[in-house]
Amino acid sequence: MRVGLLTGGGDVPGLNAAIRAVVKRGEGEHGHSIIGFRNGWKGVVDGDVMPLSRRDIRNVLPTGGTLLGTARYHPHASDGGLEAALATLEAERIEALICIGGDGTLNAASKVAEAGVKVVGIPKTIDNDVWATDASIGFDTAVSIATEAIDRIHTTAESHNRVMIVEVMGRHAGWIAVTSGIAGGAELVLAPEEPFDITRIEKFLKHRHRAHASFSIVVVAEGAVPAEGTSMHYETQVGKFGEIVAGAIGERLKVEIEQRTGFDTRVTVLGHTQRGGIPTAADRILASRFGVAAIDAVTAGTTNVMTAIRGEEVVLVPLSQVAGKVKYVPQDLLTVARALA
Amino acid sequence: MRVGLLTGGGDVPGLNAAIRAVVKRGEGEHGHSIIGFRNGWKGVVDGDVMPLSRRDIRNVLPTGGTLLGTARYHPHASDGGLEAALATLEAERIEALICIGGDGTLNAASKVAEAGVKVVGIPKTIDNDVWATDASIGFDTAVSIATEAIDRIHTTAESHNRVMIVEVMGRHAGWIAVTSGIAGGAELVLAPEEPFDITRIEKFLKHRHRAHASFSIVVVAEGAVPAEGTSMHYETQVGKFGEIVAGAIGERLKVEIEQRTGFDTRVTVLGHTQRGGIPTAADRILASRFGVAAIDAVTAGTTNVMTAIRGEEVVLVPLSQVAGKVKYVPQDLLTVARALA
Amino acid sequence: MRVGLLTGGGDVPGLNAAIRAVVKRGEGEHGHSIIGFRNGWKGVVDGDVMPLSRRDIRNVLPTGGTLLGTARYHPHASDGGLEAALATLEAERIEALICIGGDGTLNAASKVAEAGVKVVGIPKTIDNDVWATDASIGFDTAVSIATEAIDRIHTTAESHNRVMIVEVMGRHAGWIAVTSGIAGGAELVLAPEEPFDITRIEKFLKHRHRAHASFSIVVVAEGAVPAEGTSMHYETQVGKFGEIVAGAIGERLKVEIEQRTGFDTRVTVLGHTQRGGIPTAADRILASRFGVAAIDAVTAGTTNVMTAIRGEEVVLVPLSQVAGKVKYVPQDLLTVARALA
Amino acid sequence: MRVGLLTGGGDVPGLNAAIRAVVKRGEGEHGHSIIGFRNGWKGVVDGDVMPLSRRDIRNVLPTGGTLLGTARYHPHASDGGLEAALATLEAERIEALICIGGDGTLNAASKVAEAGVKVVGIPKTIDNDVWATDASIGFDTAVSIATEAIDRIHTTAESHNRVMIVEVMGRHAGWIAVTSGIAGGAELVLAPEEPFDITRIEKFLKHRHRAHASFSIVVVAEGAVPAEGTSMHYETQVGKFGEIVAGAIGERLKVEIEQRTGFDTRVTVLGHTQRGGIPTAADRILASRFGVAAIDAVTAGTTNVMTAIRGEEVVLVPLSQVAGKVKYVPQDLLTVARALA
Repeated sequence: MRVGLLTGGGDVPGLNAAIRAVVKRGEGEHGHSIIGFRNGWKGVVDGDVMPLSRRDIRNVLPTGGTLLGTARYHPHASDGGLEAALATLEAERIEALICIGGDGTLNAASKVAEAGVKVVGIPKTIDNDVWATDASIGFDTAVSIATEAIDRIHTTAESHNRVMIVEVMGRHAGWIAVTSGIAGGAELVLAPEEPFDITRIEKFLKHRHRAHASFSIVVVAEGAVPAEGTSMHYETQVGKFGEIVAGAIGERLKVEIEQRTGFDTRVTVLGHTQRGGIPTAADRILASRFGVAAIDAVTAGTTNVMTAIRGEEVVLVPLSQVAGKVKYVPQDLLTVARALA
Repeated sequence: MRVGLLTGGGDVPGLNAAIRAVVKRGEGEHGHSIIGFRNGWKGVVDGDVMPLSRRDIRNVLPTGGTLLGTARYHPHASDGGLEAALATLEAERIEALICIGGDGTLNAASKVAEAGVKVVGIPKTIDNDVWATDASIGFDTAVSIATEAIDRIHTTAESHNRVMIVEVMGRHAGWIAVTSGIAGGAELVLAPEEPFDITRIEKFLKHRHRAHASFSIVVVAEGAVPAEGTSMHYETQVGKFGEIVAGAIGERLKVEIEQRTGFDTRVTVLGHTQRGGIPTAADRILASRFGVAAIDAVTAGTTNVMTAIRGEEVVLVPLSQVAGKVKYVPQDLLTVARALA
Repeated sequence: MRVGLLTGGGDVPGLNAAIRAVVKRGEGEHGHSIIGFRNGWKGVVDGDVMPLSRRDIRNVLPTGGTLLGTARYHPHASDGGLEAALATLEAERIEALICIGGDGTLNAASKVAEAGVKVVGIPKTIDNDVWATDASIGFDTAVSIATEAIDRIHTTAESHNRVMIVEVMGRHAGWIAVTSGIAGGAELVLAPEEPFDITRIEKFLKHRHRAHASFSIVVVAEGAVPAEGTSMHYETQVGKFGEIVAGAIGERLKVEIEQRTGFDTRVTVLGHTQRGGIPTAADRILASRFGVAAIDAVTAGTTNVMTAIRGEEVVLVPLSQVAGKVKYVPQDLLTVARALA
Repeated sequence: MRVGLLTGGGDVPGLNAAIRAVVKRGEGEHGHSIIGFRNGWKGVVDGDVMPLSRRDIRNVLPTGGTLLGTARYHPHASDGGLEAALATLEAERIEALICIGGDGTLNAASKVAEAGVKVVGIPKTIDNDVWATDASIGFDTAVSIATEAIDRIHTTAESHNRVMIVEVMGRHAGWIAVTSGIAGGAELVLAPEEPFDITRIEKFLKHRHRAHASFSIVVVAEGAVPAEGTSMHYETQVGKFGEIVAGAIGERLKVEIEQRTGFDTRVTVLGHTQRGGIPTAADRILASRFGVAAIDAVTAGTTNVMTAIRGEEVVLVPLSQVAGKVKYVPQDLLTVARALA
């Protein structure tokens, strides 16, 4: 079989482990030809192919990024994009296509599937908000990087007398904020799932610092928003709520907290460091299992599915069940974050 | 309520995160008194108590080890041990006891429960072989340490021309070996679940090195055993199979492989480094969730259970279902390890 | 002897290792009493003392921050500050004072020394700009954190098609920028030592991306400035040159580069993560050596000096030679950074 | 110019950074052709060449190992070896040869230099015992790995009640043992520089554990030896003193200490993990500086020298001054290790 392979959307650590697994298992066990496309869906539309053999995936297991490159581009969103993609797939005689990506890439995959292409998706996103799977590739590494950063900020916060805001990724769901907040021992965690009340934050910080504490750590997801009706006094130029801009919410909170409490407040925006570098063991294992499961599914003729992890098991889920849904942080995890503040 | 708390068996990273969660939630939310026992069951038998308040758990979240100390000691295994333990619990007016431990500690917990004490268990073991839970505290950190070691050995193996054996922990089940073998890209993984055939290993290595490779990495669990009927020529003094001694199987394999293939072979025994140091974010989160769930269970009157993680959820499992069982590495994970070799 | 001890200025990793060395050696070997002052010079002025014994320094070796607390406060800069400091030192019968700090703290130390107090300084600063010593406590850790961040950003930059700006600390001297730029393989390094020409940067990036590259990494010290006469078109609100504000130069460069080249450009400000967390082995060793040398100097009666590392040796340098000077990055290191771009 | 390049002896992290610097600077700035030899001197003897261009050194900066391969082989030690080496160098029209290696490789370099070849050496060894330079490539990374391992063992030692022995590399000099012992807070450090007295160790441990401590960490260099006249009771099969075998001294100490004190004693042999993995920032910077300095020296016609770091400066030292000398740990560093135990 000739099997296509692409990585789409933002890059995350672990993509190369998944590519490696598809190639090793696909070529070595099943005898398939694996045809990579460069820069996600863009490579499919442009016919930018990169045949992959075992030589190409040597030494990539512990590396971040993606050897195929990636882009935020969706064929169905541009004129003639879908047609061009289908034409390439036919010209390259691709019998099935494995798409590694988040929300957007998997959505595009289901559009292409509707047009008759056999597709298997592999979920990746540091935001961990892909539906129907306990975890997506990249999330564990991002949490581990964010936690390490909070650990570092902890020691410096203790030595001075400060409120330290750490802004992490998470547009629609606060997975990184909540889990790294728990792991890093944050005093406050602000996630999109629970719009925050700035007046309560003010009271909490004043009370805490009056009581005994000399510092507080606030972890905020970039997509966190104030509760309706709560007033944020100060307007900053950095960005508006609604359109999520890296650093915007962190900066706004800093200004509000300083104005309201008088405490020296600093903000650190973790930004791109969260999606780079060496994947954790957990991400490499997840990616390897997903890669094997995807190529095995293709071989068995089971397509239009996404690989998912459920407990200790890798399962296949219909792509149609996944598209357009967001997996939010469950209530019990939010409770743990609050309980341990 | 007066709630007892102990950590038993070998120490693992994440114990302090669990202790912290029990104390923060127990004292802060429920108003309980948390009474720690030093050195596991030994402290219960000896009446060695250490009352825990929020002051005691400051800054312990990212630390390895256990602030309560631990010991490999089981009250029911020594004369009068169980009686002494029960006497202490009564004297200290302990209304429920939270036991953080592996197989042995949880087994002791179920004996104590049979004697009428209200008990909640929290599973911890780097071996990950506790029944009924996807993961136990310490496993993720151990895998991440083993993977990092394999990564390091990889670069040095490539530069020379060698077979590198890495011996990891895992007496009854090969979880660390299989997962770190996948994450580290090992050529061979030997786990207790699948007794190995030394003749096939010899053939595999000879074939691989003849074909193209200049090195091979073999990850072996300390509890791995040769298949019945296979002959291991060489006797070493380091230990015998059956009684598992750190370094024994690694050394035996080294000698066999060198004798049979003539390849320069080196063995690294990871040993105690696997259970030390800073817990990963994943272990801190798991431990925090388990700690909260355990004290909430105690408060709700649900006892004689163990906290367990199943997918994204923390659940409670009857202790009686757990005791005496070993959770082995499932077939599909062994397949992934083989597929990616 | 009664020996005072303080840590002043911004906190850095390794301070606790130095404190530990002073206490262990001072109490254990020389039989001194070590009297800590909380929050740097502020604690001296306020009489906020914290006697230190071996119990207090247990387990602090691998921790970041400072167990004594710190503050950016200089007694001679506030009315009556110096007098209050001297009064405390007399009331506490301090025979000599060990001051761990950067530029500002050491400057204050030399003022206090002029007033007759016996002082020994220990240099610490992540900026590495203290005169007369090859290295100061905290620098190695900061470089290692910045390098790790650049490594991470590298993988994500390669996968997309971007200019990535990394802003690191360094107000007057570009040590972190230059060394982490070399270690991280940056394409451009901008340090205060060499005002930059934005037009040349524009040309370099255009040429590089036209030729072959799909990404560029620019490391910039927060204190970097444009060369006189070069025109930066765009004014941002984030800050002005001259008063150094975290994030200001990074943001300005981003805007200029995007405007001039059209390349997608992202900026990451490492901020407080650079001064937090676990000290590297090199920083712990340096801090331990400095602590031992400082208390040995005090004991031998050699005061009004600073400990310094020169090659493999720890030496003592007159405080008066150090104050008010800035150690800049030498030309040959700037050349290496350029040569390897 | 046609410039040869080889890496010899054991591999260490940072070799690729040095190779990269030689190629980037040599090809880019000076217009030289860089001709690599595979597997150290062996490649020179066998004529196994690998021309290096900028494409070959992409992405290698943060990687361990050596892309040229290495071997422990010295041309002058085998019949006709030197002649074959010279013949290759002539056939390949090599005008100068850069040799990256330790003691043995640099010694071979000086033999080849005596035969008329222009040679520049770059020192690398995790043992840090090359004469005339403050540091050699690989040492900083090895110390950082050993320190991290000691940190891990610390937490597990504290939780139980044990003597933990950590055996590190260091055949002739105890640099890793002494520095990682200081950084890791070891109670005892045993280095080849100071033969140890087992009876004093026994007394020290008994006294310490009687007084208060529940654990002790002993760091021992593989080349440590007992003082003459001291009796080690127990003979092990693992190895004899004199011929240094990994694990031998650790095992012997374990047996002696257990016999003499009755304390539960465990040994961890760090082995090959010490020379693998990602080079620290400090090693990458050192290697980059050495690489640039070496190719600049070649270009300037300064040969038969070794690059060396002295304080903040890279200097050139005659090869003849280096060969055959061992740089031992200086007394003041041994004192710090003892003082902080």
